[in-house]
Amino acid sequence: MARAALSTEEIRDKLRALPGWELREGYLCRSFEFRDFVEAFGFMSQVALWAEKLNHHPDWRNVYRRIDVALSTHDVGGISDLDFTLARKISDLAASLIR
Amino acid sequence: MARAALSTEEIRDKLRALPGWELREGYLCRSFEFRDFVEAFGFMSQVALWAEKLNHHPDWRNVYRRIDVALSTHDVGGISDLDFTLARKISDLAASLIR
Repeated sequence: MARAALSTEEIRDKLRALPGWELREGYLCRSFEFRDFVEAFGFMSQVALWAEKLNHHPDWRNVYRRIDVALSTHDVGGISDLDFTLARKISDLAASLIR
Repeated sequence: MARAALSTEEIRDKLRALPGWELREGYLCRSFEFRDFVEAFGFMSQVALWAEKLNHHPDWRNVYRRIDVALSTHDVGGISDLDFTLARKISDLAASLIR
């Protein structure tokens, strides 16, 4: 099931297929820089719709054109497959925006 | 001008008219809790449009239905009238959403 905590080894293994993301203090983290706030918040809006659709929401911070994303699965007290599903989606959305 | 740093006394004075906000580590801060993520991100979208319109953007963090907002004016290295303008707008938007 998606709702089981992955081991550190499993996480490190899966991270190899997810460039830009890293494990930091129990969170799957990645930072993004866009051209400006319009582009950054446009990206956040796309991520928000997917987060709601997946019923899995990021811990994220935005300062102007920068966004720091941290993912974990509260229910399991760690990182689950769901975090990787959302992380992959976030990377895809960013790739379609960042030139 | 809006782009001058306010003194701590001026800030404390203006904060009296702005319930819920406080000065913390050089930022004008307030936290909000909404019913769920849909409501929280809907609020963020409204704030984003106003931030862009005012050309003044928050440092903010969102975790599910919670949002922590921190405002300051980088150009002047402190809090300016612009932060109070945005803070007031944010309070108005929240008041129209929080029941």
